Amino acid sequence: MTIRASIHHQNLDKIFYPESVAIVGANKVSGTVPNDILMSILHANFNGVVFPVSPREKFIAGVKAYKYVIDIEDPVDLAILVFPSSVCHMALEQCGKKGIKAVIIISAGFKEVGGAGIDREKRLIEIANKYDMSFIGPNCLGVINTDPRTRLNASFARKMPEEGSIGFLSQSGALCTAVLDYAQAKHIGFSKFISFGNKADISEIDLLYYLAEDEKTKVILLYLEEVSKGKQLMLAARDIIQRTGKPILVLKSGRTSEGASAAASHTGSLAGRDDICDAAFEQSGIIRCYDIEEMFNRAIALTYQPAPRSNKVAIITNAGGPGVLTTDAAIMQGLSLASFNETTSQLLKKHLPATANTKNPIDVIGDARADRYNAALSAVFNDPDVAGVFVILTPQSMTEIEDIAKEITVVSEQFDKPIYTSFMGESDVAPGIDILQRNKIPHYILPESMADAFATVWQFEQIKQKEWFHETFVDNVLFDKAHMVFTNVNAKNQTYITEDLSSEILQAYRFPLPQMKMIQSQQEALNVAETIGYPMVMKVVSNDIIHKSDVHGVTTDIRSPEEVRLAFQTMKFLMEQEAPNAALKGMLLVQQVEQGIEAILGIKHDPSFGHVMMFGLGGIFVEIYKDVCFKVLPITEQEAWEMVSSIKAAPLLKGARGTNPKDLAAIVDCMLKLNQLVIDFPQIKELDINPLIIHNEGKGCHVADAKIFINLQSELQSKKSKEKQ
Amino acid sequence: MTIRASIHHQNLDKIFYPESVAIVGANKVSGTVPNDILMSILHANFNGVVFPVSPREKFIAGVKAYKYVIDIEDPVDLAILVFPSSVCHMALEQCGKKGIKAVIIISAGFKEVGGAGIDREKRLIEIANKYDMSFIGPNCLGVINTDPRTRLNASFARKMPEEGSIGFLSQSGALCTAVLDYAQAKHIGFSKFISFGNKADISEIDLLYYLAEDEKTKVILLYLEEVSKGKQLMLAARDIIQRTGKPILVLKSGRTSEGASAAASHTGSLAGRDDICDAAFEQSGIIRCYDIEEMFNRAIALTYQPAPRSNKVAIITNAGGPGVLTTDAAIMQGLSLASFNETTSQLLKKHLPATANTKNPIDVIGDARADRYNAALSAVFNDPDVAGVFVILTPQSMTEIEDIAKEITVVSEQFDKPIYTSFMGESDVAPGIDILQRNKIPHYILPESMADAFATVWQFEQIKQKEWFHETFVDNVLFDKAHMVFTNVNAKNQTYITEDLSSEILQAYRFPLPQMKMIQSQQEALNVAETIGYPMVMKVVSNDIIHKSDVHGVTTDIRSPEEVRLAFQTMKFLMEQEAPNAALKGMLLVQQVEQGIEAILGIKHDPSFGHVMMFGLGGIFVEIYKDVCFKVLPITEQEAWEMVSSIKAAPLLKGARGTNPKDLAAIVDCMLKLNQLVIDFPQIKELDINPLIIHNEGKGCHVADAKIFINLQSELQSKKSKEKQ
Repeated sequence: MTIRASIHHQNLDKIFYPESVAIVGANKVSGTVPNDILMSILHANFNGVVFPVSPREKFIAGVKAYKYVIDIEDPVDLAILVFPSSVCHMALEQCGKKGIKAVIIISAGFKEVGGAGIDREKRLIEIANKYDMSFIGPNCLGVINTDPRTRLNASFARKMPEEGSIGFLSQSGALCTAVLDYAQAKHIGFSKFISFGNKADISEIDLLYYLAEDEKTKVILLYLEEVSKGKQLMLAARDIIQRTGKPILVLKSGRTSEGASAAASHTGSLAGRDDICDAAFEQSGIIRCYDIEEMFNRAIALTYQPAPRSNKVAIITNAGGPGVLTTDAAIMQGLSLASFNETTSQLLKKHLPATANTKNPIDVIGDARADRYNAALSAVFNDPDVAGVFVILTPQSMTEIEDIAKEITVVSEQFDKPIYTSFMGESDVAPGIDILQRNKIPHYILPESMADAFATVWQFEQIKQKEWFHETFVDNVLFDKAHMVFTNVNAKNQTYITEDLSSEILQAYRFPLPQMKMIQSQQEALNVAETIGYPMVMKVVSNDIIHKSDVHGVTTDIRSPEEVRLAFQTMKFLMEQEAPNAALKGMLLVQQVEQGIEAILGIKHDPSFGHVMMFGLGGIFVEIYKDVCFKVLPITEQEAWEMVSSIKAAPLLKGARGTNPKDLAAIVDCMLKLNQLVIDFPQIKELDINPLIIHNEGKGCHVADAKIFINLQSELQSKKSKEKQ
Repeated sequence: MTIRASIHHQNLDKIFYPESVAIVGANKVSGTVPNDILMSILHANFNGVVFPVSPREKFIAGVKAYKYVIDIEDPVDLAILVFPSSVCHMALEQCGKKGIKAVIIISAGFKEVGGAGIDREKRLIEIANKYDMSFIGPNCLGVINTDPRTRLNASFARKMPEEGSIGFLSQSGALCTAVLDYAQAKHIGFSKFISFGNKADISEIDLLYYLAEDEKTKVILLYLEEVSKGKQLMLAARDIIQRTGKPILVLKSGRTSEGASAAASHTGSLAGRDDICDAAFEQSGIIRCYDIEEMFNRAIALTYQPAPRSNKVAIITNAGGPGVLTTDAAIMQGLSLASFNETTSQLLKKHLPATANTKNPIDVIGDARADRYNAALSAVFNDPDVAGVFVILTPQSMTEIEDIAKEITVVSEQFDKPIYTSFMGESDVAPGIDILQRNKIPHYILPESMADAFATVWQFEQIKQKEWFHETFVDNVLFDKAHMVFTNVNAKNQTYITEDLSSEILQAYRFPLPQMKMIQSQQEALNVAETIGYPMVMKVVSNDIIHKSDVHGVTTDIRSPEEVRLAFQTMKFLMEQEAPNAALKGMLLVQQVEQGIEAILGIKHDPSFGHVMMFGLGGIFVEIYKDVCFKVLPITEQEAWEMVSSIKAAPLLKGARGTNPKDLAAIVDCMLKLNQLVIDFPQIKELDINPLIIHNEGKGCHVADAKIFINLQSELQSKKSKEKQ
């Protein structure tokens, strides 16, 4: 933990559990933000003292006001700044002098407006550093803590939410108002509710760690528009999930380039690829959500009900059609239908009418009243194969909607298995849904959402079981040898490493390379050919030629001295024709390896998550089917195996259709070496092994071609110093 | 149109627009189905006469009752039967005698319960046939017609829906109650609302045609659990879309095998493959939906607002985050963001504050009141690049929710472009949403649903433009030659056609086959080899061996007389070892065609849609990536081209990555010949051309191997006679 992070950690308690709060910039004008916030705090019956600070007023809403924060006689735990952005820094300076450690800066007009706003924001950070203060914001909606010990609504949201177990963090303030409105209608409660705005000082990472410790919070929800600290987010998520078992759900917008540029226009950040974000979240156990409703649909399942012990559900419905729709939804989400044992079947037959369907999905028939639902529920809950129950209701003329809702509530408490519901319709079923929601029985409008929520909880059970931290190091590598090549290339200000040198680097890291040698003349080629052996490949090498095949710079399948001569002469001739200005370093003679499956193994650099490894089969598999897998570095051996298995074409590698299984261990070995290489030489910007030729099991694999691009050390240093500013 | 269909067509008017209705089986017991239906009709203020028919009562609810339907003095247009299933046929017989042509049979206890129920249902059909009556049901909820000329609620639904333009058809009665409840809350109106139950007499096809003619219906919605008459459904859909331009939305459940078997348990029908259902719907212009909400989200877009003229939308929001989420949703649905011209940009800058984002998505900022929404709306509606507008609202403390809703309603009426809305939240925004819904402005909870609805309307505009009927016939085929082979095979009671004969059939239909000849001895093989030329392939031929490669029954790449001898001897030996009981017909010598891309072209028989053509690239493409395309036969030339283009691997065929484009026209030619072959010989049950080897453009393609399976004529006849029963 950095020093600032540990300071934040102490100060965050003062933000959420202050005994005294100063509203700096308060006024008497109803409908303005400063007045709304003061009223929010007073109306929520805050368990502490409020000090309005206003240069003009003696009192506001019956509460004594102070000219400056420094004038307050008593100690102040938390200051809320709602001053205009141009004078915010003065107010913050005064807070520092007063000894206030925790501040919420509501005011907008900082980094998000660009120009002078960026400087104003920097100034706030300097002042906070000077006084060891921590602040949330600027440009945020504020903070809510429903804990009855404090009951703080330090926000200009219209309403104080109910108490609950969901901790909600949002980069967007406006979204919060929609979320609070949505949640209130559904009786969804929150432990803490935080709009963190520009996150100039306290970031989502600090807040995640805080909610991880917060005993009132069971599930953490985060809305993000930009992932600025991707690696830290991943580490925090893994750590929190492992230590506390709390699920973290993230809604990250800007999935498309158009969406990302809309987000950038108000966050100013560079967006990475969305599929890399998917991979990074998956790698760290984060549950990614794609809309607000999905997020809450899953959150209520995670907080309201026990986790299932398997993926087998029982479906109870009073209507055949919706039963079929729900079955479809369950299966498509990877769930399966529980098979009832004899006892259950007998009980169902006994309590349900002859026309009822006692198989799963159970149809209690349209005229079912509460007693039939009760009988079916009790029967299936007792069945050992049933891990959870989906209850469907349609409002038919004799359906006792409220009674059935109450029955569900009662039965649910008797069993340690989850129950989810879907009362289909809207007006007539509303009183029943209200009963369910008040009693923390998850209710869903669509069977798809219900099945998705169940699948998410089940998936999170697997995530919790996963062992994360087994970093894999490869130690039998020749670091010094590779280092020398990198240093030489860097000294020459080259960002592209030619194949002769990239091969040296890969050889130093013990990648399986075919035999090869640089030659300068035809005679040398003929001599070298004898030692390498036929067939072989000849390639031109030049700093100026990255894509050799564009200039006919590769000849394959050379099988005789005559063909060596021919290849040498032809390629030299073509080079002169097609790339007359390229400086030729020589030709590379390479042993031609046996055929096998061609794969691509590479490294990219993502602006959010840093180095990312990519794996897929060559050519059309990546280009047409987008069948490619990403992992953020560093990767563990387990993750390397996951990469090999997670492409759709994996059956081909494993030996589908009667073919021989390929050497998967050799691929994993290359991945771990590549991982080590990039950890050791972070100046690598991009690296492509294409193709990596994979042979049958036990026969290894071969790097047939590799490109490396680096960042020059000078550029890296200037980047770092910029980041420090 | 069949005779029955034309009778139904006349009688359906009496079902929806009766001047007099008899409720046969009415009673005085409130809460029972017969009483509920009588009350529904009376409460809806039916514009006609109601005659309760009850063996026991003199009057019900103040209305004179009759002992038998035959006792009613006046003519009766429509009878509603709610008698126990065991005596329903007697009531129906009486209706026939009374001259009633239109009947709704609500009673359950027929085909859906199996056994005697099936016979009871057959009896109803016989009676209906005898009297030229038509009936809906049995086992249904009834029928609603909101047309003020009639106002008929002949159902036991709890409520009469509002008048509107949506015609709703459902196989499930119980689902109807949920739909009515859902629709009422959202002010969604219906023209006709029909639960058609077991569809023993009047089917969904009859009802589709009726709604196509119904001037009150603009959009047709259909919930189906089984597609029993797939071909008819396709023809009806195409015809209706082409003639009337009315969209048809179908929610077909039973997508998974578990769902299908749950559906089968209460419909008793055999389910086809869901991807074939997808293909069939797409082929006929049907918009397939996957849940009730999606169906209505699309239906309101289709009925409430004009269709867009392009896929370019403007987004107006008062919150950045939701703007980003909506942009993502739009792009992911294939829409694009409109680019504003100079006039629009100037107008936006003039009317919005400096901090607002005047680019698309437009952010009118959290404190926006109705005037800003109005200014932004008017500006973008006038922009020629904008085809439609998405309006987002989050409930911030100063947001004038109802005023903005009203403003949207007013502005919307001034322009012939669609406007869709999403007021995010729930309680606070509810009054605004209510205004929108009453004024037929589509409102969506999720931006995803909004974008999907827009994309659906835009897609339907393309569907309407499509030209459907250009059936393609191939006439230069040798029908008689193929017919002889089929007759011979049939005569031998064989269902598998060996390769020598299947090749004869394909040759007769002028498929591109390599040269080939059957041989019986090694010497003959050597002689034939000289005329066919090397390299060649040798294959065993036996009625008992379908998968030749399983018994090593194929030798490829035979390049000399010596290799011919070796192949002949080895295969003969292996046959004796591995398939000692198989009767060998001989060996087939086949010219080995040049390499090319391997495809699979085949015919399957689907229980719902009949013959289906399948096309994909060979091996892993079909098996691993499921990259395969289906079309229901007959196909047109245009559809054949669509098949070639619609597989994901199409770029490979078209010449991706510097390769030569392949001979697509040759594939299309094979598809049309295959189409013709199956039309001419419907006894074909399954046909697989695997591989079809596709060469470069202009070089054609070759059938390298083909299997044909047929239904014996005797089986077909018994099937047909069963269907007639």
